[in-house]
Amino acid sequence: MGIRAAVAGASGYAGGELLRILAGHPEFEIGTLTAGANAGAELGSLQPHLWPLAGRVLAETTAETLAGHDVVFLALPHGQSGPLAEQLGDDVLVVDCGADFRLRDAADWEGFYGSPHAGTWPYGLPELPGQRAVLRDTRRIAVPGCYPTVSTLAMFPAFAAGIAEPDVVVVAASGASGAGRSLKPHLLGSEVMGSVAAYGVGGVHRHTPEIVQNLGAVAGEPVTVSFTPTLAPMSRGILATCTARVRPGVGAAAVREAYESAFDGEPFVRLLPEGRWPATAMTLGANTALVQVALDERAGRLVAVAAIDNLTKGTAGGAVQSANLALGLPEELGLTTIGVSP
Amino acid sequence: MGIRAAVAGASGYAGGELLRILAGHPEFEIGTLTAGANAGAELGSLQPHLWPLAGRVLAETTAETLAGHDVVFLALPHGQSGPLAEQLGDDVLVVDCGADFRLRDAADWEGFYGSPHAGTWPYGLPELPGQRAVLRDTRRIAVPGCYPTVSTLAMFPAFAAGIAEPDVVVVAASGASGAGRSLKPHLLGSEVMGSVAAYGVGGVHRHTPEIVQNLGAVAGEPVTVSFTPTLAPMSRGILATCTARVRPGVGAAAVREAYESAFDGEPFVRLLPEGRWPATAMTLGANTALVQVALDERAGRLVAVAAIDNLTKGTAGGAVQSANLALGLPEELGLTTIGVSP
Amino acid sequence: MGIRAAVAGASGYAGGELLRILAGHPEFEIGTLTAGANAGAELGSLQPHLWPLAGRVLAETTAETLAGHDVVFLALPHGQSGPLAEQLGDDVLVVDCGADFRLRDAADWEGFYGSPHAGTWPYGLPELPGQRAVLRDTRRIAVPGCYPTVSTLAMFPAFAAGIAEPDVVVVAASGASGAGRSLKPHLLGSEVMGSVAAYGVGGVHRHTPEIVQNLGAVAGEPVTVSFTPTLAPMSRGILATCTARVRPGVGAAAVREAYESAFDGEPFVRLLPEGRWPATAMTLGANTALVQVALDERAGRLVAVAAIDNLTKGTAGGAVQSANLALGLPEELGLTTIGVSP
Amino acid sequence: MGIRAAVAGASGYAGGELLRILAGHPEFEIGTLTAGANAGAELGSLQPHLWPLAGRVLAETTAETLAGHDVVFLALPHGQSGPLAEQLGDDVLVVDCGADFRLRDAADWEGFYGSPHAGTWPYGLPELPGQRAVLRDTRRIAVPGCYPTVSTLAMFPAFAAGIAEPDVVVVAASGASGAGRSLKPHLLGSEVMGSVAAYGVGGVHRHTPEIVQNLGAVAGEPVTVSFTPTLAPMSRGILATCTARVRPGVGAAAVREAYESAFDGEPFVRLLPEGRWPATAMTLGANTALVQVALDERAGRLVAVAAIDNLTKGTAGGAVQSANLALGLPEELGLTTIGVSP
Repeated sequence: MGIRAAVAGASGYAGGELLRILAGHPEFEIGTLTAGANAGAELGSLQPHLWPLAGRVLAETTAETLAGHDVVFLALPHGQSGPLAEQLGDDVLVVDCGADFRLRDAADWEGFYGSPHAGTWPYGLPELPGQRAVLRDTRRIAVPGCYPTVSTLAMFPAFAAGIAEPDVVVVAASGASGAGRSLKPHLLGSEVMGSVAAYGVGGVHRHTPEIVQNLGAVAGEPVTVSFTPTLAPMSRGILATCTARVRPGVGAAAVREAYESAFDGEPFVRLLPEGRWPATAMTLGANTALVQVALDERAGRLVAVAAIDNLTKGTAGGAVQSANLALGLPEELGLTTIGVSP
Repeated sequence: MGIRAAVAGASGYAGGELLRILAGHPEFEIGTLTAGANAGAELGSLQPHLWPLAGRVLAETTAETLAGHDVVFLALPHGQSGPLAEQLGDDVLVVDCGADFRLRDAADWEGFYGSPHAGTWPYGLPELPGQRAVLRDTRRIAVPGCYPTVSTLAMFPAFAAGIAEPDVVVVAASGASGAGRSLKPHLLGSEVMGSVAAYGVGGVHRHTPEIVQNLGAVAGEPVTVSFTPTLAPMSRGILATCTARVRPGVGAAAVREAYESAFDGEPFVRLLPEGRWPATAMTLGANTALVQVALDERAGRLVAVAAIDNLTKGTAGGAVQSANLALGLPEELGLTTIGVSP
Repeated sequence: MGIRAAVAGASGYAGGELLRILAGHPEFEIGTLTAGANAGAELGSLQPHLWPLAGRVLAETTAETLAGHDVVFLALPHGQSGPLAEQLGDDVLVVDCGADFRLRDAADWEGFYGSPHAGTWPYGLPELPGQRAVLRDTRRIAVPGCYPTVSTLAMFPAFAAGIAEPDVVVVAASGASGAGRSLKPHLLGSEVMGSVAAYGVGGVHRHTPEIVQNLGAVAGEPVTVSFTPTLAPMSRGILATCTARVRPGVGAAAVREAYESAFDGEPFVRLLPEGRWPATAMTLGANTALVQVALDERAGRLVAVAAIDNLTKGTAGGAVQSANLALGLPEELGLTTIGVSP
Repeated sequence: MGIRAAVAGASGYAGGELLRILAGHPEFEIGTLTAGANAGAELGSLQPHLWPLAGRVLAETTAETLAGHDVVFLALPHGQSGPLAEQLGDDVLVVDCGADFRLRDAADWEGFYGSPHAGTWPYGLPELPGQRAVLRDTRRIAVPGCYPTVSTLAMFPAFAAGIAEPDVVVVAASGASGAGRSLKPHLLGSEVMGSVAAYGVGGVHRHTPEIVQNLGAVAGEPVTVSFTPTLAPMSRGILATCTARVRPGVGAAAVREAYESAFDGEPFVRLLPEGRWPATAMTLGANTALVQVALDERAGRLVAVAAIDNLTKGTAGGAVQSANLALGLPEELGLTTIGVSP
């Protein structure tokens, strides 16, 4: 008898990826699936790749349909998880892939999301210093955003080691699935293919305060972050290029040491051998983050680059990793580390 | 009777793009085409899209085969243009798409390219302050590199207006044609598609000192540049995301004004209306640079983004634009501004 | 003073491509631009690559707004051209990029399009035997569909020469722009990229009767056509693979001769040298069709493959080519033959 | 203690996919890895996505290095498996992903492959009638080619049911990984992206006789096959569109029934609900074939379309599926059915 898991928002990309992972997880049993506008439809008509689950009918997303499970994964538009979570039992593990419970600063939340702040839950990034212990002892998890996942993994080692100035530039390229299944002209294949495009420039992207929060917490001081997302012609993957000036006297060995130390023993993060650089395709469908770092002595900066699959390590895989911890299961259970490549 | 133009290096991507543009240019007549290892082959076997020129046989690249033309375009591996150019007459317009004559600092050249410095020619970026006049009066043109073209266009207005601190971060995504026709595993379609990859990280890419040189010249003081190129899954196009801290007291209006002023009247650079951002596909096959800029007040930075087609405005189109100037032709002749989109 | 051209449906992909071509055409002057739901908007907000026309405001699509031009290009959803064309003067050249006037058989029209048959106009494929003369003497042109253009060019030489059995199989791969700017989930970049998908299988695609009509007319007898379109992960281009059994005794030389003879002197169709095969990218943005043919003696079939850009030779370029003929201009005027490649 | 598996040819795409699957298989233990020119290298430098195996050193491909395993997977260039296999013990399960042992007709082998025929092994397509029993009782397996896998799955039901004429047309679009890691200009990302290209047209592709053999065996009579492969701009996946005339009197119900019956209970083949069509991305990384069929009454043909991942069901997944059978393991063990999508 498995751990019963419900997925709210099963018709979207994040919900689909959760189901792909849960279907291969040895301990989970897939329970109720819900949707908003697509409630009543069969999953097979919306997620044809999930054909072993094709006949499952999507229920409405309510506390009632989600009752009776050990774990509830929420993959809902932001602002919906808050009211719903209140009605789910305290003993149920609730894992929110949305943004509602990520930010500690209510003003930041309201400024960037335009709705009342729901609260703050333990942050589902086990690789952060001390965070694994927090996640082992919780019934509520806020899964990080995809950009914050990859950017934080790329830069927190520098702040944990105290080698970087607190002024970070992040430029990230994301595959189109990061925008979800929204029907907008600029997301049409005709317009996405053959093109890299900027959007959300100038500090206005909602993931900006989350990166600021993560790096500031590790640094122990305020960190400014200039974050620019770009849309790349691929379905999945994020490559984040991150840089900060190094503190005086910091050399290449200290930089390397900071990253080796931060990722030592991590099951899902790999610091690449020197001279090799991440490519997003190496992580396709895997819960892996590949990281590399270099010191540019002329510019006085360290440059860290990290690649993930935005839907796996950046959303659903990260969610299952944290859920494994909270449920006392092996952290790696049901998650792959090898991408589907080439 | 047209202006006779030879193309050295006609079997590569830059040479092919030169021929595409020259074939549609009302004043040029295409003369000798040369190649290295492919000498003796018919153009059609190497550049099948240039089918109206399919029967042209490629000559060896020598001063003799290139003699007797009004213009010689060089699209050769770096280090080859220097010795060859010395043997071409002083009255011939020589337009070098390679790197040999771009850098003023011999030590930079030798450090990044590992061969003796050939010299410095007028730099073929007419949009730089004062540069159009220089190009109208020269028989030698060094066409800028693709990354320096787009990065310089994105950032020089800020330095011309004195609104930015001299510490620039550039992260650029390029299509695979930027790497030329080199047969390397990481450039195979299987590995490029579905993936964004970093390379040349840490200030080691050869275009770095060229960007430093350009921005420093406009700023009138040394500028540090952290430049990170990435490879995106598209054939053509570069999107450069550039940022620098703004000087104290600089507001959004001053930023906008700096860019409007810099690009006023430029035939091939468009500052997009506020709120719109460049996508590389909008420039496909066109000699256009699309630019946008925003002020991120929280981070204290301006962020400028520019898109070009690396083979057109970034190489062959830029070459023809500068050649038009040097030959006393209208700057826009034979060049399109509208990309093939979607 | 140029020939004044209006474009109805300027906000779609076909309309955009018409404008890209017209903007570079030495004889046309771009007049009124119209749209449906987008009337009132500036062109720049919908077609950002057409930035030299960015400030043009889209009028409503009516006979009144379209009056006063020498040529009216219609790029409208099917069923809209019929009523509108009746109200345009007989002396105006009307070039319909839609399907309304392509089919001669009213029952076919009604069966496949579900609306009343508007009539039949001269068919804008100048390469068909005898068709160039027809187009030189008309004020009404029905531009062929993109799939019929490429399929007909690939197969009509075999029927003109009487070497093929009248049972044709066509399987074609099209870029996503062929579906227009419709907001459907399966056209999102996330779902198109990395995937080839079948659709409209089993003879139900609307272009089927058009191919049947074209090949039957050349063959002088009924031809059955099994047509299967597929969606390929690219923005533009169609590759059509077509096959029919050869009549007894037909050898490779007769096959080659049939195609050489059919395309002799054609400005926009190139029969590739033996052993080389078309790729769609070779035609990007050009009004070119690249064709190749082989005889498979074991299977008793000839296989013809043709590549075009669906928006250029397959729509807007073909429209301008035919309009040039009808207006007494050189057929090639304003059209390029060299694709933007690689 | 697991079943010890060696992989010969671990540096190629097929070898990499075998390792990805074996690493997640609960019963296999990965033993010796070998390579040709890359012997001596660490796997991580060639297959960076296989980072948990990064430190493995590749041995030379010899009978000695491959000794001492329970299973040997061969992923070698054609012609190399024959001599090697003779030296591997009769009790070792040898699974050849190459072509050497697929064809029964020695003349076909020599004509298409140009080397002496090595013999014929049981064919690793368990879905063929009667084939599962054969595979349960063998120590030698010839894994089908990728195109024959998908084409045979698409068309054998029609011949098993006797509803189709024995004259088949197959047009298939493959991702670039099907060409392996060969360094050829037309496989560069710049040239593959944005383009569908024909190759191997006219019955000359080596997979043609294999499809002929498979369908003829099911039909019980000779079947002619016109097979045209095309290269599509994606890394993985094949979509095969297949058609044959139906025998007189065959209606849509009989066609549907033939396919339902053929795939009833198959764990890795799914006949899609009527009206839905396969897309290759739905199968990415999964051992799944998605099939659909329609009757085109006008053309008198059935059209069957099937999608697979060429490296998974088309090579390495199919190899493991058959190996599972030969080893008495559950057929599905270690194989996923849900693609990484979108």
